[in-house]
Amino acid sequence: MVERFVDIEEVVGSIPTSSTMENQELEKMRHSCEHVLTQAMLKLYPGIKMAMGPATGEGFYFDFDPSPPAGGEGKIHKISEADFPKIEAEMAKIVKANLPIRRKEISVEEAKTLFKGNEYKQEWLKEISQRGEEATVYWTGPSTSSGFVDLCAGPHVSFTGKIGPFKLLSIAGAYWHGDEKNKMLTRIYGTCFPTQKELDQYLWQLEEAKKRDHRKLGKELGLFIIPDEVGPGLLIWAPKGAIIRREIEKFIVEEQTKRGYQHVYSPHIGRKSLWVTSGHWDLYRDKMYSPMKIDKEDYLVKPMNCPMHMMVYKSQLRSYRDLPLRIAENATVYRYEQTGELAGMVRVRYITQDDSHIFCREDQVVSEFIGVIDYIMFLLKAFQIKDYYLRLSLRDSQKKDKYLGSDKIWHEAERKIEEAVKKAGLTPKRVEGEAAFYGPKLDIMVKDVLGREWQCGTTQVDFMLPDRFNLEYVDNRGKIKRPVLIHRAPLGSLERWVGLLIEHYAGAFPLWLSPVQVVIIPISERHLDYARQIREALRQRNIRVEVDERNETMQAKIRDSTLQKVPYMVIIGDKETKTSKDKLFISVRTRNGEDLGQMTMKKFLDRLEKEIEKKV
Amino acid sequence: MVERFVDIEEVVGSIPTSSTMENQELEKMRHSCEHVLTQAMLKLYPGIKMAMGPATGEGFYFDFDPSPPAGGEGKIHKISEADFPKIEAEMAKIVKANLPIRRKEISVEEAKTLFKGNEYKQEWLKEISQRGEEATVYWTGPSTSSGFVDLCAGPHVSFTGKIGPFKLLSIAGAYWHGDEKNKMLTRIYGTCFPTQKELDQYLWQLEEAKKRDHRKLGKELGLFIIPDEVGPGLLIWAPKGAIIRREIEKFIVEEQTKRGYQHVYSPHIGRKSLWVTSGHWDLYRDKMYSPMKIDKEDYLVKPMNCPMHMMVYKSQLRSYRDLPLRIAENATVYRYEQTGELAGMVRVRYITQDDSHIFCREDQVVSEFIGVIDYIMFLLKAFQIKDYYLRLSLRDSQKKDKYLGSDKIWHEAERKIEEAVKKAGLTPKRVEGEAAFYGPKLDIMVKDVLGREWQCGTTQVDFMLPDRFNLEYVDNRGKIKRPVLIHRAPLGSLERWVGLLIEHYAGAFPLWLSPVQVVIIPISERHLDYARQIREALRQRNIRVEVDERNETMQAKIRDSTLQKVPYMVIIGDKETKTSKDKLFISVRTRNGEDLGQMTMKKFLDRLEKEIEKKV
Repeated sequence: MVERFVDIEEVVGSIPTSSTMENQELEKMRHSCEHVLTQAMLKLYPGIKMAMGPATGEGFYFDFDPSPPAGGEGKIHKISEADFPKIEAEMAKIVKANLPIRRKEISVEEAKTLFKGNEYKQEWLKEISQRGEEATVYWTGPSTSSGFVDLCAGPHVSFTGKIGPFKLLSIAGAYWHGDEKNKMLTRIYGTCFPTQKELDQYLWQLEEAKKRDHRKLGKELGLFIIPDEVGPGLLIWAPKGAIIRREIEKFIVEEQTKRGYQHVYSPHIGRKSLWVTSGHWDLYRDKMYSPMKIDKEDYLVKPMNCPMHMMVYKSQLRSYRDLPLRIAENATVYRYEQTGELAGMVRVRYITQDDSHIFCREDQVVSEFIGVIDYIMFLLKAFQIKDYYLRLSLRDSQKKDKYLGSDKIWHEAERKIEEAVKKAGLTPKRVEGEAAFYGPKLDIMVKDVLGREWQCGTTQVDFMLPDRFNLEYVDNRGKIKRPVLIHRAPLGSLERWVGLLIEHYAGAFPLWLSPVQVVIIPISERHLDYARQIREALRQRNIRVEVDERNETMQAKIRDSTLQKVPYMVIIGDKETKTSKDKLFISVRTRNGEDLGQMTMKKFLDRLEKEIEKKV
Repeated sequence: MVERFVDIEEVVGSIPTSSTMENQELEKMRHSCEHVLTQAMLKLYPGIKMAMGPATGEGFYFDFDPSPPAGGEGKIHKISEADFPKIEAEMAKIVKANLPIRRKEISVEEAKTLFKGNEYKQEWLKEISQRGEEATVYWTGPSTSSGFVDLCAGPHVSFTGKIGPFKLLSIAGAYWHGDEKNKMLTRIYGTCFPTQKELDQYLWQLEEAKKRDHRKLGKELGLFIIPDEVGPGLLIWAPKGAIIRREIEKFIVEEQTKRGYQHVYSPHIGRKSLWVTSGHWDLYRDKMYSPMKIDKEDYLVKPMNCPMHMMVYKSQLRSYRDLPLRIAENATVYRYEQTGELAGMVRVRYITQDDSHIFCREDQVVSEFIGVIDYIMFLLKAFQIKDYYLRLSLRDSQKKDKYLGSDKIWHEAERKIEEAVKKAGLTPKRVEGEAAFYGPKLDIMVKDVLGREWQCGTTQVDFMLPDRFNLEYVDNRGKIKRPVLIHRAPLGSLERWVGLLIEHYAGAFPLWLSPVQVVIIPISERHLDYARQIREALRQRNIRVEVDERNETMQAKIRDSTLQKVPYMVIIGDKETKTSKDKLFISVRTRNGEDLGQMTMKKFLDRLEKEIEKKV
């Protein structure tokens, strides 16, 4: 098993937002920009109430209550994106005025008076008071008792003039505390950057991200569907998506076989006791579906695969000579996600993992771990992912009760990973609190072409499950020993991976993954026979090819194939059928609009096969 | 969905038992032989009590109660297979005496007196009496009131001398009425045949079947495991079995793609309402696992796949031009089987179906059905199954409430199947009561090399699910119409199919399916480098190859590879390494002990590739 969904929210689709400023400084600036937005809103919409809002990885947002105060007279403010220019203009005035932003600590009582009539602030103050803390407020204006004020822990920039170029982005409804029983508030999203160039770049990325949205492209290209009748997050790979998945799985199995992995297939259900033994039932239950009864006993749909592979290990007496034993499976596992957190293919209720468990001797851990890192690098290269970093995910040292096993075992596992990483010449980022409950892990953080980060596969050293499942081998002196376990799933989830690839390639998959690789376009009906002849010749060489036999113009056919991101279009007209005496001639275009002109089938096939082989 | 497990018991492993006698005559003879056994037992084991026993497809059995009568004095008879010669000798005497076997109808009261002290017969008589029937008994002996008598409906042969060569086979415990709350009885199995030749043939088949037992071979060859920790019937495909499954799946997907099928992947769970809509929840529930809760709603592990493919169909507006639409998936579905009925791979708690749903217009049903039959024939040929017949499975006309839909729809579906079968030039056997609940089906009944019958895939015409799922297409006049649905799964269950293949091939899979295709055997350590060079050359051509690097003699290595049924062994010694100047020379042996002598790698590779291509 590999934990895939730990705190994944923060990294999905987040765009790194400044190359010229430290994160902390950037956050201060955005936080202040959010205050400026609020100040502007209060001026433009009298009576509007501030609820709350933070700086985020991509900008900031703030929630406003546009309804009139209870018993009051005011009207409900209707705010839409059409009002943004007006609000931005007001914000620009405040920035231009270069007002000081100053922190002040005051008593909760003082604060209660200051924010009288604002039930959101009063609720916060009550909590602050219960924690026995003082309140802090930030004043924007001439003094620490006049101008705009908000209850806020800071920090902020010192003057509004230090806020860089900003932009309001969108508006949405949001419940107070995210609870739909509460009042619906109006959330305004915005962002700001140190430089106009970075803001422009970000806005371009946003636009591009919308175009590349895998949910949109997934539908247009026929890659997957998520029918509500089946259930939220339970996607079906549609025929064209299924081809991509099958190609990737085939690639994985072939490469892993070369690397000495042995593949198995295990069932999707099993006795509950398997996951009680593994410890998941105690520590991972909120991600697991409720048990079902078979012959009066509890069974579970598998949330992870490890116990199955433990059973494969245990099915035979193992000797030191049998190790390392690398058991692999593209296994579909079922995990609960909240409905509100589901998103297309990247956050679903089942994932197909490129899962494997390596059982090895203690003296093999480091070399096996290096082998896994080498394989990860191989995969990233194959998928043209050039930008990534490794994250060494450690225990939260404050919450050791959330993890299994002793300090000693944790240190040992960490040491092994660090040794392997060092030998591989890599420097991971250390992050506390991201470990699996049974051991530290090395995560692969991938950046797509838009620079967005995705948490993908992970590799873990585990001294605990072998113990819990009582795994054994006979060493070279006939003594019984425990093997060490490495869990690894380099791509992580094929659903998420393909979601990432759709956005990374903007739907224009490299040839080896393209569901349809070639579309043959006969210009008129009299070219149909020749077109079919070409199709058969391509099929003979295992090219996925279609003939567009519709009664449409060549231009319309080219346009449709281009929209479907088909890598190659073969045009068949009089010129091609005529020139073909001994050789088959064709005219070739690419989805990028490039006209490759006339060529022989042999040349075209060579090109295709080379391109498929290279995976570019 | 395809119903796979309807009354499958009767056909699994049953060996057709006589070619020279009509079934009814054979059954009479065996039934009489069972009476002779009982008569012999009563003589040899005084006080032993007759319970019951029938003639079967393969012979007969009888259950005896060896315990002394309640309150009586007798001893418990210990009977074992060691006693068979003694019992057979006694039986032979009775046969030789050529005693008449005569039927007599008597009143239940008379019968109660006749079988006084035998609680089993009394229980039966009570039932007969409740039905208001008379009793019939059969006397073996001089008159219809002396000799041996049993309560029996018959029929029998007229004289014991008409009983052919017989043999007792085995002994086992069996509960009265199969209920473990009842007393354990002693069951003796035997068989008899019209001729000694047929008996000998049958005994040979029995022996052969034991050797070919897929449970035994599955373990020896590392094909699958069924760990109790995972749960009864939940098998894991071990690495070598997984290779066979993967090759078959690959073959299926490639062939189906050629035949215009589009493949999808759907989840293994879904809202319960999917199967309520399909009707399974009402009529198939005893095969389904209990629901689990997700967000307070019931979800099921899928017992069949159809609703998923209905969703694929519904994901787009379909026009008459889009039909036929052939959606396929190698889908793993989960179905309950009683623990006692589970058997190795052939009766399990999940099956991986080569499932497909063909959505077509009414005018396409027959041609699509013929297309399916053609594909089935193609598959049977590919797997070298030469002996099979088709069974047209119809409703049980007495139990129409067990089926969905009107008579009209059933007749229409039947008519379509019959028309297709006729056009394909086939004559199926018509059997009532074997239909799916939503329509008639055409089953493939396969015979393996031992002549045993297996129920494999099935094809069904369905007018009902399209209605229940409200499937539509726009016809050529713009009118909304219902498509017709064909369900088909030619191999049925990959688990069962591979179980059948293991027994059919006796573990010696044809080259294309062999988990290891070639083992290279270096005679001594100095041949290791050359052996590895040969291995790499074979791997380059995608041959599954291993080098046996163990420190064992050549003879031991050849023996082990032969036991593992590896098709080819390549022997590397001085002779091979020396002769190889420009060309690579090797010596080749087969698992059948055939020595193919020295040859070049090129020649060997050609042979391998031709054999793989031909699937022989």
